[in-house]
Amino acid sequence: MGAADSMNKAIDYVNANSKRFVDELFDLLRIPSISAQPAHAPDVRKAAEWVASRCKAAGLSAEIVETKGHPAVFAQGEQVAGRPTLLVYGHYDVQPEGDLKLWNTGPFEPVIDDGKIVCRGAADDKGQAFCAILAAEAWLKTAGSLPINLKFCLEGEEEVGSVNLEALVRAHKDRLACDYIVIHDTAQFDEGAPAVTTATKGLVYKEVIIRGPKKDLHSGSFGGTVANPANVLAQVIASLHDDKCRVTIPGFYDAVVEMSAEEVSMMESLPFTDAGLLSDLGSPRTYGEAGYSTLYRRWARPTLDVNGIYGGYMKEGSSTIIPSLAGAKISMRLVANQKASDVGRQFDEAIRSQVPDTVTCEILDHACCDAYLADVTSPGMQAARKAVGIGFGKEPVLIREGGSLPILPLLKNVLGADSLMLGYCLPSANIHSPNEFFHVRDFEAGIRSSTALIGLMAAD
Amino acid sequence: MGAADSMNKAIDYVNANSKRFVDELFDLLRIPSISAQPAHAPDVRKAAEWVASRCKAAGLSAEIVETKGHPAVFAQGEQVAGRPTLLVYGHYDVQPEGDLKLWNTGPFEPVIDDGKIVCRGAADDKGQAFCAILAAEAWLKTAGSLPINLKFCLEGEEEVGSVNLEALVRAHKDRLACDYIVIHDTAQFDEGAPAVTTATKGLVYKEVIIRGPKKDLHSGSFGGTVANPANVLAQVIASLHDDKCRVTIPGFYDAVVEMSAEEVSMMESLPFTDAGLLSDLGSPRTYGEAGYSTLYRRWARPTLDVNGIYGGYMKEGSSTIIPSLAGAKISMRLVANQKASDVGRQFDEAIRSQVPDTVTCEILDHACCDAYLADVTSPGMQAARKAVGIGFGKEPVLIREGGSLPILPLLKNVLGADSLMLGYCLPSANIHSPNEFFHVRDFEAGIRSSTALIGLMAAD
Repeated sequence: MGAADSMNKAIDYVNANSKRFVDELFDLLRIPSISAQPAHAPDVRKAAEWVASRCKAAGLSAEIVETKGHPAVFAQGEQVAGRPTLLVYGHYDVQPEGDLKLWNTGPFEPVIDDGKIVCRGAADDKGQAFCAILAAEAWLKTAGSLPINLKFCLEGEEEVGSVNLEALVRAHKDRLACDYIVIHDTAQFDEGAPAVTTATKGLVYKEVIIRGPKKDLHSGSFGGTVANPANVLAQVIASLHDDKCRVTIPGFYDAVVEMSAEEVSMMESLPFTDAGLLSDLGSPRTYGEAGYSTLYRRWARPTLDVNGIYGGYMKEGSSTIIPSLAGAKISMRLVANQKASDVGRQFDEAIRSQVPDTVTCEILDHACCDAYLADVTSPGMQAARKAVGIGFGKEPVLIREGGSLPILPLLKNVLGADSLMLGYCLPSANIHSPNEFFHVRDFEAGIRSSTALIGLMAAD
Repeated sequence: MGAADSMNKAIDYVNANSKRFVDELFDLLRIPSISAQPAHAPDVRKAAEWVASRCKAAGLSAEIVETKGHPAVFAQGEQVAGRPTLLVYGHYDVQPEGDLKLWNTGPFEPVIDDGKIVCRGAADDKGQAFCAILAAEAWLKTAGSLPINLKFCLEGEEEVGSVNLEALVRAHKDRLACDYIVIHDTAQFDEGAPAVTTATKGLVYKEVIIRGPKKDLHSGSFGGTVANPANVLAQVIASLHDDKCRVTIPGFYDAVVEMSAEEVSMMESLPFTDAGLLSDLGSPRTYGEAGYSTLYRRWARPTLDVNGIYGGYMKEGSSTIIPSLAGAKISMRLVANQKASDVGRQFDEAIRSQVPDTVTCEILDHACCDAYLADVTSPGMQAARKAVGIGFGKEPVLIREGGSLPILPLLKNVLGADSLMLGYCLPSANIHSPNEFFHVRDFEAGIRSSTALIGLMAAD
């Protein structure tokens, strides 16, 4: 039997069993594996056990691997030397449910509503990661074996910052060795526009705290005598952009790589308009660095945003004080080839050069991770594009993600492998929000895509 | 008997009865007349009744006068046509106690600690207003009558913004008619530096709210696409000062009156140093409009301060959002002859001219009151200076107050009378803070000062 035939049989198996797959996903979704809440630690473990057990049922070997926090699940098919190796990274932990009043149904009571599986974790990441396990089953139950070396590393701490992942991967570096990592933590571009993601942004997240008087002062009695930390903070923040909306931090743009002409051309062909974006977001106008389109800025230009600002009297009404301190949480999204550690240092220097000696300044570090940019010409990326085309019945577009996935530079660094980002859910899937969903049709297309990827990697 | 003899006898009476006066003040202080808290409404009324009753005991006529809120107390001596008329304004309501843990003793359990009467309301304003009632008693119990027409208007809503005072004063305009208003809501300049206050600052208090996207956005997915309200707010705030620390609002300084050479000279002779201020406040350096000394700026230059700023994620740690909105509470302290209503309009225009069309802007009005500047050459002011000199045994300094007293322009407007600001407590009296205090020696000096003022006004 030829390779194409085997792949088609595996895909037929997926189509024939999709109802059962949805029921099984419901079982996993019912486990409230909220990694952030200690009370749910037993549920996180229960989900790990469910996943390990389901991997075994698919025909893989699987085991729970302990970390200092929640456990991970390692699984794999039979390994044969000389075959390409894919490592599927995913996570079975979920975000807290948030405001229960905003959910139409119970956050851990999966339902199908208008063709959508609605539940916390439906898309992020239980539903999407499950696609890859089911793809392995499809091959194992039809061809009897996998045509590639397939490995899984499924963790239970992604929603709390993957705090033990680096130690885990380093400790099992040889066992997890691979040619490519497959990750399902991104999304399609839009309804009817399946996608392969080629880049994620880096992140440097700081907090700048300006301190003046040792306690809040009466703004009448002391106005005009000492500097007001909130006014100083505003001046410091304002100094970070120029009138072209460019970040003024010296050296900030030095390492930035522009998008290729091919990528720009593909981007420009996408069904995206500023008017559509504004209608979704509610802002009166788009805004950003001069000389770039909105989508270009979102995908491939570094940005600087205040994520939070505080100081003085913040409740209803008024209080006439000069605040003792004011602070701002400020983050920068980076692109290849900016180094997060360099940008962090440049930021600190720029802030300190702006802060006058009438106040003192403290800078806290909250996050620091590099951007990730895939080689779109690699064999793995070519296979990924074809696989999604087969799974969704439509050629995918290449897109970039404005968010950050610290695990990509981490895995690249430790395992030396590139990542393939296959996102099967919609960008509007309410990830981290109430009424998270994953279309049944996209779940099925995702399983087919993962099934096709296994076949296409073997063919390379 | 001559006028000076009568005054001396009245002052002797004060000195002879001061122990009893402290005990009586304790009775008033024990009533928790917190006007801001509805549960304490009966206590506010109880304090009004105590005050009315104590005025009668002093020999005055007195009555409770209802308002839409807490009642006021009107009291007066016998009125004789042709004599100068003083109206004492004060209040018997108090601020909430605040954080109980920060009080060394119960907030409504007065004690004498190291020569200080410690209790909520000891200085603001029960203790200081009581001085004027006791001065009336001293005259009535020694001379048998008052040498001037003396009136009292004591309210129970000062700490909640004197919300019904204007209606009250307008309704009783004829009954409250006077030559001067006496008010004890200020302080001495420092220990050993008794003072007469000649000016208070005006206040315009606004809140600027910048709105962008209709909900908080993921700063990765949407960074670089729409304006961030917190960044815009920072730019708008920063635009309000130039590099000389001057307010940039067009027209802001147009009506400002400089201090007279005599006042500046007196100011420069005061025991004030920047180093001393910084040691108290804890700021690393003084700051303010170029070309003026710190004390000049505090007394007689208008200022603009952010009193509170908020937006986005304000708790511990980090959250990668573009906030839907950001706001700042911004107030301006004004000096004579700035018109608060003009400045408010100028501020709104300046803000709107700075806000880009990538966001929307709302401006809320929280407070608007004019500055007050007394005529230091008036007969009342001359008498006040002499009276404090007699009461404290030391020539008072003329000072200005950086805070605002909206009742001064209000009373000037309705009654047409100037105010004499005699503050008997120390500026460090912890007004509105835990462990509020009033030195026994200053309480006694205050009663003597008020007693002398009655005599000196008669002599004019």
